Amino acid sequence: MDLQRRMLERRGEFLLFALTPPREATSAVRAQEIADVTAKRLQELDLDGLVLYDIDDESDRNPEERPFPFLPTMDPAEYLSRHLKDWNIPTVVYRAVGKHAESDLRAWLGTQEPDRVLTVLVGAASRNKPVATSLRRAQELWAEAAPDLLVGGVAIPERHTRTGEEHLRMLGKQAAGCSFFVTQVVYDVNAAKNLVSDYLYECVRRGLGPVSIVFTFSVCGSMKTLQFLQWLGVDVPRWIQNELLHADDTLDASFDQALATARELMTYCRRLDVPFGINVESVSNRRNEIEASVNLAAHLQDELRRSF
Amino acid sequence: MDLQRRMLERRGEFLLFALTPPREATSAVRAQEIADVTAKRLQELDLDGLVLYDIDDESDRNPEERPFPFLPTMDPAEYLSRHLKDWNIPTVVYRAVGKHAESDLRAWLGTQEPDRVLTVLVGAASRNKPVATSLRRAQELWAEAAPDLLVGGVAIPERHTRTGEEHLRMLGKQAAGCSFFVTQVVYDVNAAKNLVSDYLYECVRRGLGPVSIVFTFSVCGSMKTLQFLQWLGVDVPRWIQNELLHADDTLDASFDQALATARELMTYCRRLDVPFGINVESVSNRRNEIEASVNLAAHLQDELRRSF
Repeated sequence: MDLQRRMLERRGEFLLFALTPPREATSAVRAQEIADVTAKRLQELDLDGLVLYDIDDESDRNPEERPFPFLPTMDPAEYLSRHLKDWNIPTVVYRAVGKHAESDLRAWLGTQEPDRVLTVLVGAASRNKPVATSLRRAQELWAEAAPDLLVGGVAIPERHTRTGEEHLRMLGKQAAGCSFFVTQVVYDVNAAKNLVSDYLYECVRRGLGPVSIVFTFSVCGSMKTLQFLQWLGVDVPRWIQNELLHADDTLDASFDQALATARELMTYCRRLDVPFGINVESVSNRRNEIEASVNLAAHLQDELRRSF
Repeated sequence: MDLQRRMLERRGEFLLFALTPPREATSAVRAQEIADVTAKRLQELDLDGLVLYDIDDESDRNPEERPFPFLPTMDPAEYLSRHLKDWNIPTVVYRAVGKHAESDLRAWLGTQEPDRVLTVLVGAASRNKPVATSLRRAQELWAEAAPDLLVGGVAIPERHTRTGEEHLRMLGKQAAGCSFFVTQVVYDVNAAKNLVSDYLYECVRRGLGPVSIVFTFSVCGSMKTLQFLQWLGVDVPRWIQNELLHADDTLDASFDQALATARELMTYCRRLDVPFGINVESVSNRRNEIEASVNLAAHLQDELRRSF
């Protein structure tokens, strides 16, 4: 319960690790093997929680060719209940609500144990996409069916760069029940600081306390992975693109980059007294990239202040 | 000669202090008093050079109201020759070339001592402005009349953010003879890093060595000064705007801000092996802002590696 308590008490400084479930076509036996290997790999870490993504085909939001083909993945709720059930760690299950029928979403929300599961409700990537359930409706379902389940929202610094209004969206989600936010992968530290700052000062203006913002980091072992991140909407500053392109070892350079960015945001949030969490995302299936992600999480956990 | 030698040898790590000459209406006696007070104030610093700006009415480039009225200032070349002649320090005299007739510019260039004077040639702020001399023509005059005088150009990270081509403009100026660049005041460290990075890798691609980039910093004691900087085209990230707005002491906060930004750029340039200088600009007439500028320069000079 530490993770949920920290979120409710707005104390932050927790560490999450994010996984993408195996491909939909994976057999039950193989999925269990993957789950077991992953659990083993992560047991060396002192994680406060796990994040399971709900991958949606986002090709509707970006007309450019997807650098990696879209391969449907297992539903994260099913992956959790079937293959990670012995792993006693709070898990943040993403719900790309546009994919799920209202009745399914309501049923799922109503049967989760709040000391075990948290959720992040994610709206469709583009306005043009037909959705099974809208984000607003999903928030209503949550309030009706599972108000004790901690619910979070996504916060996108890049959107703040474009519109200057992402902090207002966050406050709207907070009013609808969100008790934490999770960003996409952060490469543009300035954009993240701008969002945190505008969010905090708007909270102060409204007499609200800020809730935890979970910053996501990942390593990147190739320029193709970097292109994929950019395709997904991550702003990567030119100097970081150059650095990764010209590095002797792209993975090492991105590791240093992620560590420096995380440290800068941690220092910044502490100075402003905004509660935060760290989420390390494993984006690829390559062994060296997975190991580097675990290593990144290990470095960051040492720098978090989690004592009571 | 240390400053010029460092520039020619592309070694960087020098410290400049920038002044705006007194108002044009200032009497000779009063101008001398100002020069003497300034010299006294700066003597505690171990400066490598002085910068004298050539202030132009830039209202043509920005239709919005200028936060401070434009007041013509003395010509920096005259201020130097009349009031700072006893001060034996290399001085970088800006020339807003659009203001000066070809014959005047040529005569001035031809009579400067290269061990005493350097110049920065600045083109008009907007393309629509009628000019006495274009930047290109001024560069030709320099090559004909004073090729031994070190000439620099302006480098604007904000323009790189908009166009992505400022590094190519820099290389064009370098081909025309520039042996250093000076930025406007840097608040957006990411924009500056993007420009340095793109400039360096384009130098490498062309088999050229990078010349020194002088980063300019200033303190800012009020939101009106900040608005003026923005009016002049300086990008100030939202989080820094918020920080200065909500600080107990805007001047102190901007001091910390400038110091942190300078340190980050110094570390970055050292890592990339790009020669750099630091220029601290005194932007206001207020005593506490001037003292904070001197204090900023004093802090930064301790961090520069100027040993031989």
